[in-house]
Amino acid sequence: MSTASPLPGTSRTRSWWGWGYVDAHPDDAECLAMGALLPGTLARPLPIPRVADLDITRPAVTPPSALAHLVTADPEARAAHAMGKAYRDVARALRGRPGRIPDLVALPTCDQDVTDLLDWAGDHDVAVIPFGGGSSVVGGVEYRGDAHRAVLSLDLTSMDRVLEIDATSRSARIQAGALGPVLEQQLRPHGLTLRHFPQSFEFSTLGGWLATRAGGHYATVHTHIDDFVQSLRVITPAGTSTSWRLPASGAGPSPDRLFLGSEGTLGVITEAWMRLQQRPVHKASASVSFTDFSRALDAVRAIAQSDLAPANCRLLDPGEALLSGAASDGSSVLVLGFESATSRVDDRLASALDIARSHGGQGDDEERNSPAGAGGSAVSAWRSAFLRMPYIRDGLARVGAVVETFETAATWDTVPALIDAVRTEVGAAALKATGHPATVNCRLTHVYPDGAAPYFTVAVAGRPGDEVAVWDEIKAVATEVLHRHRATITHHHAVGRDHRPGYDLQRPAPFALALQAAKDALDPHHVLNPGVLIG
Amino acid sequence: MSTASPLPGTSRTRSWWGWGYVDAHPDDAECLAMGALLPGTLARPLPIPRVADLDITRPAVTPPSALAHLVTADPEARAAHAMGKAYRDVARALRGRPGRIPDLVALPTCDQDVTDLLDWAGDHDVAVIPFGGGSSVVGGVEYRGDAHRAVLSLDLTSMDRVLEIDATSRSARIQAGALGPVLEQQLRPHGLTLRHFPQSFEFSTLGGWLATRAGGHYATVHTHIDDFVQSLRVITPAGTSTSWRLPASGAGPSPDRLFLGSEGTLGVITEAWMRLQQRPVHKASASVSFTDFSRALDAVRAIAQSDLAPANCRLLDPGEALLSGAASDGSSVLVLGFESATSRVDDRLASALDIARSHGGQGDDEERNSPAGAGGSAVSAWRSAFLRMPYIRDGLARVGAVVETFETAATWDTVPALIDAVRTEVGAAALKATGHPATVNCRLTHVYPDGAAPYFTVAVAGRPGDEVAVWDEIKAVATEVLHRHRATITHHHAVGRDHRPGYDLQRPAPFALALQAAKDALDPHHVLNPGVLIG
Repeated sequence: MSTASPLPGTSRTRSWWGWGYVDAHPDDAECLAMGALLPGTLARPLPIPRVADLDITRPAVTPPSALAHLVTADPEARAAHAMGKAYRDVARALRGRPGRIPDLVALPTCDQDVTDLLDWAGDHDVAVIPFGGGSSVVGGVEYRGDAHRAVLSLDLTSMDRVLEIDATSRSARIQAGALGPVLEQQLRPHGLTLRHFPQSFEFSTLGGWLATRAGGHYATVHTHIDDFVQSLRVITPAGTSTSWRLPASGAGPSPDRLFLGSEGTLGVITEAWMRLQQRPVHKASASVSFTDFSRALDAVRAIAQSDLAPANCRLLDPGEALLSGAASDGSSVLVLGFESATSRVDDRLASALDIARSHGGQGDDEERNSPAGAGGSAVSAWRSAFLRMPYIRDGLARVGAVVETFETAATWDTVPALIDAVRTEVGAAALKATGHPATVNCRLTHVYPDGAAPYFTVAVAGRPGDEVAVWDEIKAVATEVLHRHRATITHHHAVGRDHRPGYDLQRPAPFALALQAAKDALDPHHVLNPGVLIG
Repeated sequence: MSTASPLPGTSRTRSWWGWGYVDAHPDDAECLAMGALLPGTLARPLPIPRVADLDITRPAVTPPSALAHLVTADPEARAAHAMGKAYRDVARALRGRPGRIPDLVALPTCDQDVTDLLDWAGDHDVAVIPFGGGSSVVGGVEYRGDAHRAVLSLDLTSMDRVLEIDATSRSARIQAGALGPVLEQQLRPHGLTLRHFPQSFEFSTLGGWLATRAGGHYATVHTHIDDFVQSLRVITPAGTSTSWRLPASGAGPSPDRLFLGSEGTLGVITEAWMRLQQRPVHKASASVSFTDFSRALDAVRAIAQSDLAPANCRLLDPGEALLSGAASDGSSVLVLGFESATSRVDDRLASALDIARSHGGQGDDEERNSPAGAGGSAVSAWRSAFLRMPYIRDGLARVGAVVETFETAATWDTVPALIDAVRTEVGAAALKATGHPATVNCRLTHVYPDGAAPYFTVAVAGRPGDEVAVWDEIKAVATEVLHRHRATITHHHAVGRDHRPGYDLQRPAPFALALQAAKDALDPHHVLNPGVLIG
């Protein structure tokens, strides 16, 4: 068996310790060039970590023979399943101190396999960490502590098929282990698409998106994967939960909404009926620049409170705009995109541009008319930079930089003060922790009539050898600022283990009681993703 | 204290046993005229029931003096809180066999009152039935059985204020006991509206809408009250749950989504921050008639799968169209409405009409251009009939007819067969139960890219004196048909007690375990709305 199944049409190798493909990693020279932008980074990149250097012990348990064919103790596989892909994970790998290596990795191929593995784990005190693409940036797929006898990483990526398509209802039954490109490839011949394109698209699965309530393609209206769920199939230690395929229902609290965002603590999502889209044929996009970020915020709010519903409505602050190549003159840049499978969208773009201009935005009419509606240079620059960003982060990590990205959401009355406070206080915390000046950039990724989701990137040269501690210090301040502004600890990255302190402050106490009770009922042996969300 | 606070600007009297205002009830002659449409109805209307004729016993408990000012044992108040306003409730009242009369009615004025009342009830084995406008049509606000020492109806309508408005984030903090007109009246001076207009608008509260996941104004996209919730405040016996005001979040399963649809079984919703709308200034509406209902279904599906997002998209089958006066020639009628606060909507209506015509619809261009976009005669006829419908139902009940309305939702691949099966099988069941032919009409109230919400009205002359049993027989068949088609037991009327059999079949078993566990944690004495949803 193999845990490194290459994506369809590729034979590229995934990195066990860093983001994405090995061949896309910045080389040493690029790492140094990036580091030059951050005073205080290392003069020589840290070496690329090797599995052979890890202290990988013998598994503490042996699966029964009936399950042996599903399970491997291969060191490479175990190392690749030890952590997600947060900065914190990458930094630990670079310093030779990864998280606890799981004893075993399982690759179930059907629901019965999952049930059997959960039964065995429950009976033998084996913690089970559901694992999709492994792209968690919140410590969602590792084991911390030593309360269990052994740890099993449950890799769902062998369950990656589109099982059924209902073209009439524009929906499909899809196995949870399908990576983004794998499921889209199967939908394409039917002229349909899930159209969920998180930054991690290539390296994350449907099940991961569902379990973490991932943010997706649309900047407005249907911003989360939640909105596209028709029904879920979830294997819990207490039985299998299959909700009916329904376009909507008012029958009690939504069963699906309990499992959405449950991050593997209540059960293992193995498949879902998902609502699909037709591929858009009408597209129009443009960028608008603003000299004043606060007026740009007002413009975005006005667009969000209209009924124009842009598919893309990303506001980059001057630092983000500079980094992504969207602007280099200190402007903020609003990237707007409209799309439709059924009607022209030029008028909607024109209306949005009118709103932006009325708030001081400088629109670029030429871009708007660029071929195939691909948008202009700022739009393209932004998109390329977006996909490249995690690789750059890892390159910076190799020169000892500390990079933290976190996202949140808050109501509009709070957004400006929140952004100011993050810039000021998190910047100061980074300086205090390292003695080096930090960059703190912000963009709005998703917007709503009642608020917005700011996404922050903090970068600073770390204390050599102590990068994880620096990250923890910065994170604590960021968490405190979010809490003080009643801004959510996560809009779409999930809670995992890294966000638990913030989540515990945010979650209403009676809901915590209810969630713990649900957990106790569904996972009585407490083997599912221990330490995440609750308990 | 009074439990019959008239609506602002009115001094009209609410009926204790039937729908709405006493002065709007059909008189005897009207009842007979309606009954003439259903062969086999009574020749003389049943008399209007009187509270004085009820057997109202002394309350089995006395509240402590500290709570006495919140509680009444007045017979009129107790009778008015004995049941909701389902046909089943009206028929029981007309036959002098209402549900169990609560021992006491409480009218808390603040959260602390609610907490104190719940504490007292928990300590004294008193069942608590949260009560908003009392318009439940699913047995959601009555007590059945005798497992508790006494029954307290908890009427929230004294908590009816808009407490705060955040115009920037277009949202407001509103107490849960506010009836529709009461909250809209308070929002109007701010140019804002919740724009939630269920059929029960005048006689239902924000808290009731939230607890039952009510369907609202919009036929597409944001169809349920759920979508407009920013945060909830819920008093549970285990403490008060206050979620943060957030435009969106990915932090664990949504706390609000556990309480939305919990129908008073997990706690008492006392206030919510709600997302508001600006009042629409652009409106356009039209009706389209179809000689072929199945082609009309195709047209509606195509509109639902476009991105035109009509605010109104109601398809009336020939029977519905006839009854509401929208058509009298056997046509089905599609009522379309578009609205916006920010942009013209004529183009969207034109596009929707194009789609409808391409499926054989006959649009009426004159209506579309009627003054103020109010729509034409079919649109107006439909709206008047819609609001009058529950009064008509009660009039029919007085001449011994059995009237059942139920709504559901299913994916498009199932919708045509579902509607056929309901017409055939429920019609046959009504005939079998009564010996009289039944009318079974259908309309689509809300539509989605992946399915639709059909709403059925069944009317037949009952077995005199045995109307409730007839209703139960018809309901059992309806429930079976919905279950066989995997159509939800309710799209927006809630589960209550009447839908429990269907809900129990639909709800995934592990979710039932989780819900029961949550209930046990939050309501350890099991006093909250016993018999609803679970347990």
